[in-house]
Amino acid sequence: MNQNFILPNPWSIIVDHFNKAEVPATESLFSLGNGAMGQRANFEEKYSGESLQGSYIGGIYYPDKTRVGWWKNGYPEYFAKVLNAPNWIGIGIKINNQILDLNTCKIDAYYQELNMKEGWLMRTFMATLSNGSQIQVEAKRFLSLKFNEIGAIKYSLSPLNFDGIIEMAPYIDAGIVNKDANYDEYFWEILDIKSENNIALILSKTLKTNFHVCTAMANEFTLNGQAITLKPKLASKTKKIKFIYKQKLEKNQTLSIIKYATYVQSMNHQSDALCQTAISNLDKARKIGFEALLAYQKQDWAAIWETADIKIEGDVKAQQAIRFNIFQLNQTYLGEDARLNIGPKGFTGEKYGGSTYWDTEAYCIPFYMATKDKHVAKNLLLYRYNHLEKAIENATKLGFSNGAALYPMVTMNGEECHNEWEITFEEIHRNGAIVYGIYNYVNYTGDFEYIPKFGLEVMIGVARFWHQRTNFSKEKNQYVILGVTGPNEYENNVNNNFYTNYLAKWCINFTLETIENLKSSYPSDLDRVLSKTQLNQEELAQMLEVAQNIYLPYSKDYEVFLQQDAFLDKEIVPTEFLPKSQRPINQYWSWDRILRSCYIKQADVLQGVYLFENAFSKDQIRKHFDFYEPLTVHESSLSPCIHAILAAKINRIDKAYEMYLRTSRLDLDDYNHEVAEGCHITSMAGTWMAIVQGFGGMRTHNNALSFNPQIPKQWESYAFNINYRGCVLRVHKTHSGCVFTNKSTQALKIIVDGSILVIEPKGLVKV
Amino acid sequence: MNQNFILPNPWSIIVDHFNKAEVPATESLFSLGNGAMGQRANFEEKYSGESLQGSYIGGIYYPDKTRVGWWKNGYPEYFAKVLNAPNWIGIGIKINNQILDLNTCKIDAYYQELNMKEGWLMRTFMATLSNGSQIQVEAKRFLSLKFNEIGAIKYSLSPLNFDGIIEMAPYIDAGIVNKDANYDEYFWEILDIKSENNIALILSKTLKTNFHVCTAMANEFTLNGQAITLKPKLASKTKKIKFIYKQKLEKNQTLSIIKYATYVQSMNHQSDALCQTAISNLDKARKIGFEALLAYQKQDWAAIWETADIKIEGDVKAQQAIRFNIFQLNQTYLGEDARLNIGPKGFTGEKYGGSTYWDTEAYCIPFYMATKDKHVAKNLLLYRYNHLEKAIENATKLGFSNGAALYPMVTMNGEECHNEWEITFEEIHRNGAIVYGIYNYVNYTGDFEYIPKFGLEVMIGVARFWHQRTNFSKEKNQYVILGVTGPNEYENNVNNNFYTNYLAKWCINFTLETIENLKSSYPSDLDRVLSKTQLNQEELAQMLEVAQNIYLPYSKDYEVFLQQDAFLDKEIVPTEFLPKSQRPINQYWSWDRILRSCYIKQADVLQGVYLFENAFSKDQIRKHFDFYEPLTVHESSLSPCIHAILAAKINRIDKAYEMYLRTSRLDLDDYNHEVAEGCHITSMAGTWMAIVQGFGGMRTHNNALSFNPQIPKQWESYAFNINYRGCVLRVHKTHSGCVFTNKSTQALKIIVDGSILVIEPKGLVKV
Repeated sequence: MNQNFILPNPWSIIVDHFNKAEVPATESLFSLGNGAMGQRANFEEKYSGESLQGSYIGGIYYPDKTRVGWWKNGYPEYFAKVLNAPNWIGIGIKINNQILDLNTCKIDAYYQELNMKEGWLMRTFMATLSNGSQIQVEAKRFLSLKFNEIGAIKYSLSPLNFDGIIEMAPYIDAGIVNKDANYDEYFWEILDIKSENNIALILSKTLKTNFHVCTAMANEFTLNGQAITLKPKLASKTKKIKFIYKQKLEKNQTLSIIKYATYVQSMNHQSDALCQTAISNLDKARKIGFEALLAYQKQDWAAIWETADIKIEGDVKAQQAIRFNIFQLNQTYLGEDARLNIGPKGFTGEKYGGSTYWDTEAYCIPFYMATKDKHVAKNLLLYRYNHLEKAIENATKLGFSNGAALYPMVTMNGEECHNEWEITFEEIHRNGAIVYGIYNYVNYTGDFEYIPKFGLEVMIGVARFWHQRTNFSKEKNQYVILGVTGPNEYENNVNNNFYTNYLAKWCINFTLETIENLKSSYPSDLDRVLSKTQLNQEELAQMLEVAQNIYLPYSKDYEVFLQQDAFLDKEIVPTEFLPKSQRPINQYWSWDRILRSCYIKQADVLQGVYLFENAFSKDQIRKHFDFYEPLTVHESSLSPCIHAILAAKINRIDKAYEMYLRTSRLDLDDYNHEVAEGCHITSMAGTWMAIVQGFGGMRTHNNALSFNPQIPKQWESYAFNINYRGCVLRVHKTHSGCVFTNKSTQALKIIVDGSILVIEPKGLVKV
Repeated sequence: MNQNFILPNPWSIIVDHFNKAEVPATESLFSLGNGAMGQRANFEEKYSGESLQGSYIGGIYYPDKTRVGWWKNGYPEYFAKVLNAPNWIGIGIKINNQILDLNTCKIDAYYQELNMKEGWLMRTFMATLSNGSQIQVEAKRFLSLKFNEIGAIKYSLSPLNFDGIIEMAPYIDAGIVNKDANYDEYFWEILDIKSENNIALILSKTLKTNFHVCTAMANEFTLNGQAITLKPKLASKTKKIKFIYKQKLEKNQTLSIIKYATYVQSMNHQSDALCQTAISNLDKARKIGFEALLAYQKQDWAAIWETADIKIEGDVKAQQAIRFNIFQLNQTYLGEDARLNIGPKGFTGEKYGGSTYWDTEAYCIPFYMATKDKHVAKNLLLYRYNHLEKAIENATKLGFSNGAALYPMVTMNGEECHNEWEITFEEIHRNGAIVYGIYNYVNYTGDFEYIPKFGLEVMIGVARFWHQRTNFSKEKNQYVILGVTGPNEYENNVNNNFYTNYLAKWCINFTLETIENLKSSYPSDLDRVLSKTQLNQEELAQMLEVAQNIYLPYSKDYEVFLQQDAFLDKEIVPTEFLPKSQRPINQYWSWDRILRSCYIKQADVLQGVYLFENAFSKDQIRKHFDFYEPLTVHESSLSPCIHAILAAKINRIDKAYEMYLRTSRLDLDDYNHEVAEGCHITSMAGTWMAIVQGFGGMRTHNNALSFNPQIPKQWESYAFNINYRGCVLRVHKTHSGCVFTNKSTQALKIIVDGSILVIEPKGLVKV
């Protein structure tokens, strides 16, 4: 497959040709979402070629039976599966009774655009059917940001070389399955299927979880732009409802259908009010009309871009890529609903059970904090706060006690969704990321109150877990953490993973210091939490003892912390000596060979260096980078961004740029030949970090906002905005300097390359 | 469930009551086998209660699709499943048209016996049906040792309180499934189903593997012991064929059916001759007759017991247990067919895919060497020799090269059947057991020629694997073996497991020494093998370098070799402090907790001390035993026997006895509440070793046969025979001494407690 099939464009994702082999990939890349729902860029008309059909509704999942070779105690019985939802985009088209299907007809011209600036998807094509009829089609659709239960499609068709009967048959299909299902079973039960006043509705519910969803559509028509009324024939089966409209067209006339559709679901409405709400949604949509809804859409996306946009001059592919990343993040999560989170594939595919990984805390929170109001990041934190009880249950199941909490590796509702012992039970560093997220949030937003009100309970649960998860090694005369998997999943069940141990130590220390601070600042909240958690002096003292004496493996020879106790027993051979034919190693090597090798999937010790940069001198950072990066194969989408940031930190701007390229166009150029399964949503936040924290050098340590801007020689300039504690600051870096523009009405103090600057309200400073 | 429901008896396994809850367990315990086929003790008549139906044919398997949560490179696509085979034991019984079913009628008396001395199974019972009819039944059956394709049942029924119509409907049912199947699918295809001259036949074949099997039956009747002829009605469905016989009986008359059955299969016959062979088998059986076949059976079992029996006086449960173990081993494998092996459940259940584990080499070979002619053990060795190419393929798939061989963890046909990375890829010590088996065989039998003819190729393949599997650690300045699972499967992916490293070193050294020796003794065979394997001086030198410099983790503090590098980082708490409520830990603890703990599933370092006893002083053995045994939970059936042998070695006879009890009645007393799934066949050989090598202290080092007999105070005496290099020696130990009787016609030199004795032909020596 051509891995370079997206046309460069600063604001749009475009293909200008039709290639069947590219269809599944473009379905992912051109996906639409509005935070509440999303859909792959499946075609409206029938398509008999290879395709992954996908429509998704935020928060709706199914607890599927886990498949496992050998059961281990502690595994969850079920995992939450992101469900394919009823399809409302479908419009069957017949030309003189022949079905339109791009898989079987001749394509004379094709153009598809995902307009990121305005938030819509369009396809136009000219095609000749086997009966000789040539037609022109334009299909445009969007999922409204303003009315997030509503989507709209305008599908226009013109005969180019004939007069004939055109049939348009918009439908809703609830007879959908997941590709990733054990036995091709249906996960939806149809409760009602009906039509009222030319509105078709299907009321369905998910098996087991009982989410109720009403999916509904209403349709309007224009002929050559003039509204006309067509009388439909209703065709309803057990799982699908369809209106069939026919119209005779003369050559070059244009018939357009405007299909309004809605998902209304029981997380947001009473179950018995769903159909009524769906009808009123469609009434509202029709009343506003397609063009006005689209105008709102442009307006709402403009508001998002106002803060979130990053502008890169001199490199249109880099420009396109960063906007694609920002666009997809916003399509996936908008932060208004604390029950939702950022799935690794967002609304672009169904792969991976569950929606939430440690990616959220480690990679996504910085993006949302800097480009949106603080309540958005707070909602991400509250998501975990609301799952605390389930995290305590999870830890209890694994043998921990007394309120220790272990957050799941993968989750939808707080319950663990993953079943590999080396991950589920051992990749416990995720638990530290939850607390780091709190630290990061408070540090960035200044919303310290979050801790006494919510965060502290989480911190105590996690600190207790770390305390209990250590044991005292007589051999080392220190506390150790045995049997873990670090961020580098290419080592399993290792002892004393530096990142995990350091994080454990830090989590306990941060919790203890916080408790100390709260004694004066929030005494009554502290009392409430201590009493609720029954945390006493003795346990606090034991925790302190552990944190003070935790073992951190270190090599005096290399002057680096070691990824794990036995790392230096490995044969250390840099990746440059790895034959190309054997990469990615996860496709060519057996698992044991990968485990024995020195090759690192993603930042591990360096993830710690990144998160706790202030604990390392620049020289130490350089030593760690030079030791570990040459051993890193970057086979996780989350790897290059961290390396880009650290490379920039040690002023290796070329290396940073190389790493940036690997992260920013991962999906657009389909590096791993897998984008057909969906986009890598969470790593897109890492791409954003690579620019802002990497090239921009932005940090928010110690209640201060600082920068150390650098620019790759390949670019003329770049500019980004951040919302820091209510002030929006624009940073515009060129080769000749950097301009900081304070867009807010209050003065803003920043530190640039170590010097303190104050920027007046609405003022700017050039450095 | 009553765990003590088997009546003590020196030669039989007996229950004298009927308890539905015990049915699945007794089905396992009373299983029959003749090395070529076997069956669980399912009832002949219908039984609607809980039951695991099982008939098995040696060597017949199905390559089922593996089920796995997350795929890892290197996993086999398929695993060999022991297939449930067509059922020929069934005889439907109706009494005045009411079905006889022990699950629904009242049992007035019940007795079931597995006669191990003579090799048959019998049930008698009195039962009252819901229509008030009381009947007496006696059912006896056996699988002929002499004609190992033939089995016979005599099923006799008498009305006790009525006259009425008795219907007997013997059938063959090929519509059988495996309990352990992914989707309840059928693995057999029916090719033909027919009757000829009152013989019913089903010709079937296994899907994918295309094993063809003809299952056939012929039936005879007696009334009050007098042969009668009954005319059957044939009832044939697509997968089942049945003859229905009816006879009016008066009160206290006895109708008996004698059902002869046969499996004839394509591993042993041409596929197109199967049905004809089946018919002639049944003709032969009918001609010989039930009682004469049974007489052969007694005679053949007597011949087995002649050498294999162990007699224990003063402890009937111990006596019963050891005979049960010896009986089941002989039912499972008789050593005449090098394509067969010793499945972990034998013919008593379907659990575990494949038939062959390292158990064969590490636990079973000593039993077969000592109780049978040497060609039996040789066949077990040839089984591996014949799989060498597949073992090389397996290693190649995992990234090894140049003829390195890795034998599978579990196999039927030489291909790996297991899919857990920590086992499949990492429990590589199994590879050493294959070579140890060769060493052990040659040492015991004196058949040194086996090595140049066959063994050396295997040894070279394995030595190459070990050579390639090490890497040089700069840190340790020695060769290390990273990422393994030792015999203790409660630690995974550890580094430098002592047992594995020692075995690797030993395998290479043994191979190199052997090559050196063969230069003078078998030069042409050596040339042939060196040329075939292309083993050159450079590779030999590299192997030697590795073997001489392999790292063996050792604690100076404890003066023991360490189970793995990080063992002393664990919290070391003896099992006596483990609450009973948490045992077995594999049922109560999460997997990560088990892995982090110091608890050992089965002998690991001690397995090495056992195999290589001569490399350790008695004091060292004691130190290792005292360090490791208190940490061992013995949650593998293979654990207690090794500990019993070592405890005896260091003269802890009480401890040895405690361990012996744990191994010998494991199944009879259903320690682990799992015997319903089948018996632990391979560990039964360990039980035998616990007496002969443990209490008897038998060793065969350096071409010498030695003993160090001890006796537990609970026993009056014990006696066993061994066949050593063609001489049968009886060892009879009492509290007052030990008598060695040379049953052969040549003088035999033995070492007893360090002193050399020579026993004259047919003579005896008392010590």
